[in-house]
Amino acid sequence: MGTVTELDRFDVLSAREVDDAVNCQWRIARRPQGNVRPEDFSWHVTDVPEPGPGEVLLKTLYLGLAPVMRFYMQGTARTGDDILQPGDLIHGRGVAQIVKSRHPQWREGEVVQGQMGWQTWKVSRMTPQEKFFRMPNNGLPAALGAGVLGMTGLSAHAGLFACGQPRAGDRMVLSGAAGGVGSMVSQLAANVAGCDVVGLAGGPDKCRFVLQHGCSAAIDYKAEAVAARLDELRPDGIDLYFDNVGGEILSACLERLRMHARIVLCGSISEYTRDEPFGLANYTRLRATDSSMRGFFVYNHLDRWEQVMEDLAGWIRGGKLKPVQDIANGFAEMPRALANLYYGQNVGVQCCSVRGEPGEWL
Amino acid sequence: MGTVTELDRFDVLSAREVDDAVNCQWRIARRPQGNVRPEDFSWHVTDVPEPGPGEVLLKTLYLGLAPVMRFYMQGTARTGDDILQPGDLIHGRGVAQIVKSRHPQWREGEVVQGQMGWQTWKVSRMTPQEKFFRMPNNGLPAALGAGVLGMTGLSAHAGLFACGQPRAGDRMVLSGAAGGVGSMVSQLAANVAGCDVVGLAGGPDKCRFVLQHGCSAAIDYKAEAVAARLDELRPDGIDLYFDNVGGEILSACLERLRMHARIVLCGSISEYTRDEPFGLANYTRLRATDSSMRGFFVYNHLDRWEQVMEDLAGWIRGGKLKPVQDIANGFAEMPRALANLYYGQNVGVQCCSVRGEPGEWL
Repeated sequence: MGTVTELDRFDVLSAREVDDAVNCQWRIARRPQGNVRPEDFSWHVTDVPEPGPGEVLLKTLYLGLAPVMRFYMQGTARTGDDILQPGDLIHGRGVAQIVKSRHPQWREGEVVQGQMGWQTWKVSRMTPQEKFFRMPNNGLPAALGAGVLGMTGLSAHAGLFACGQPRAGDRMVLSGAAGGVGSMVSQLAANVAGCDVVGLAGGPDKCRFVLQHGCSAAIDYKAEAVAARLDELRPDGIDLYFDNVGGEILSACLERLRMHARIVLCGSISEYTRDEPFGLANYTRLRATDSSMRGFFVYNHLDRWEQVMEDLAGWIRGGKLKPVQDIANGFAEMPRALANLYYGQNVGVQCCSVRGEPGEWL
Repeated sequence: MGTVTELDRFDVLSAREVDDAVNCQWRIARRPQGNVRPEDFSWHVTDVPEPGPGEVLLKTLYLGLAPVMRFYMQGTARTGDDILQPGDLIHGRGVAQIVKSRHPQWREGEVVQGQMGWQTWKVSRMTPQEKFFRMPNNGLPAALGAGVLGMTGLSAHAGLFACGQPRAGDRMVLSGAAGGVGSMVSQLAANVAGCDVVGLAGGPDKCRFVLQHGCSAAIDYKAEAVAARLDELRPDGIDLYFDNVGGEILSACLERLRMHARIVLCGSISEYTRDEPFGLANYTRLRATDSSMRGFFVYNHLDRWEQVMEDLAGWIRGGKLKPVQDIANGFAEMPRALANLYYGQNVGVQCCSVRGEPGEWL
């Protein structure tokens, strides 16, 4: 982790102006080393592309941001089939409107979400690899497609329900509880599954936030002794640990498992800026309690997309899930919005309103 | 690991003579540091105890040996409710015959298995904590109760079927394949579940052994480059890894998981003589393939004892499971038989014929 003032260095990038008459892009200038820095991003301006037969022209409305994007920039994670190289457009999903269509199955005016890349316009053949979905006009803001009703929402739903198998009354612990996936998991676990959730977050503001979003207790991992607080708050141990951070907190939870406990490995943000990966020395603790540790990757759960989105929209309308998105204002803010994730600055799902418009349904 | 010649130092203990007119015991002389050594054991002789009301007198016939016993001696594993102290009788399960009974539910002549401790006679109230089971006279040697039809068998069955969820055609990898649990798992996986099993074992003799006991291929982890051989033998990755060793081999398998792969943590013998526990740095590999790592402890599966023993006996009679027990000859050999496990000397289930009698049904 760097100091938060390093984020001020992104001011120079934020000064870029988006002109709707051209296509603005953020590309990889160099591979990030440790945290992302302004020098890792380059700004490109091209013509707005013209769709050919079988193609559509998409106007980017909102883009989502996720910790995995640093791996895309570093070339250590695949995006579909590709490893990104310096000079490449940065991968990212978002919400867009089809403004021209020469594709038989997609109509002008439709609002979709899918792989847009960090750019303000895109011509697409709408291939399966881009994973475009129509956004249902369910009365909810279209911006939610860049997070709560997008891949972040699918992560929270699949991770908690399909992988975590929560049971009413489960003594649960959740790390990264104020983050994108975390702020959804805490609410779904408490309000839908009936778990009792202890949330870990960094700083008093985030701890207050998690108490308002499903957690019955909060641990400030920056200020408190995590192990001692877990002993206090989970004296009978842990049935379900939803892990967004990895490292020492995962290790502390492994020491406190109840019989048939489940650990869900969703993210490992503590790993992302470490020089050496964390060596999990107490993995054998899974044995005494017949516990399991299950990983998942959101793209493996796309086959349940429609049902998951229906579930989530229903819970939002029913008041069980308050959508929380931290919306950066304008496409120029994308690099800083990404950096925010690693500096722990965001609350809820980090996304960006590309044209700085409010997040209402279109 | 020490050198095998260190095992010769156990000769001095093996010279002890067992006299049926007294009760001979092996107790903890001191906490083992690293491998067990002759100096860690002390020999005690007491009168054969007399059963009071509600008690039985048990004559020990066979005792089983398992890697966990070093932890009992070190005081780092619980045996039921207790932590053993220096001076205490070493815990161990075995097969015994009731030679006197003042207990209403147990008859003279019955053959049982349960917690005997390392001694030649025991008076017992047959408490639930001692977990005594009647041995069915199924025509199989009573000695099997000290392993294949005892806790080792329950470990293999529960670990493979209840935890591993094997499917026909699974590309499986098994470490410790020539050991007690391993030599059973390989056969059950291949002959009952229909998996294709690559077995890891130390040395050419053990590799030959595993090929005769269910494995379609063997890796000699002492002589071969494990990662390269896994790439050769499992070019499409691993569906199921049954782990008896932990450490580097677990880590190598984590790099080669197929979708929805399962890892069963049964034992971690590579951890037992390490100074520092192994830091599992690539646990996050569970994520990309939606895989899971499940631990288990055999005592958590006792409720299925009768069904498991029926299954195993049936498979032995049907030729699907060849019972392999490595039987030390005489109670004086117990310390060396335990040391064998850590020096990788045993093939199959290590046990001991307390009175040096052959392993027939009584």
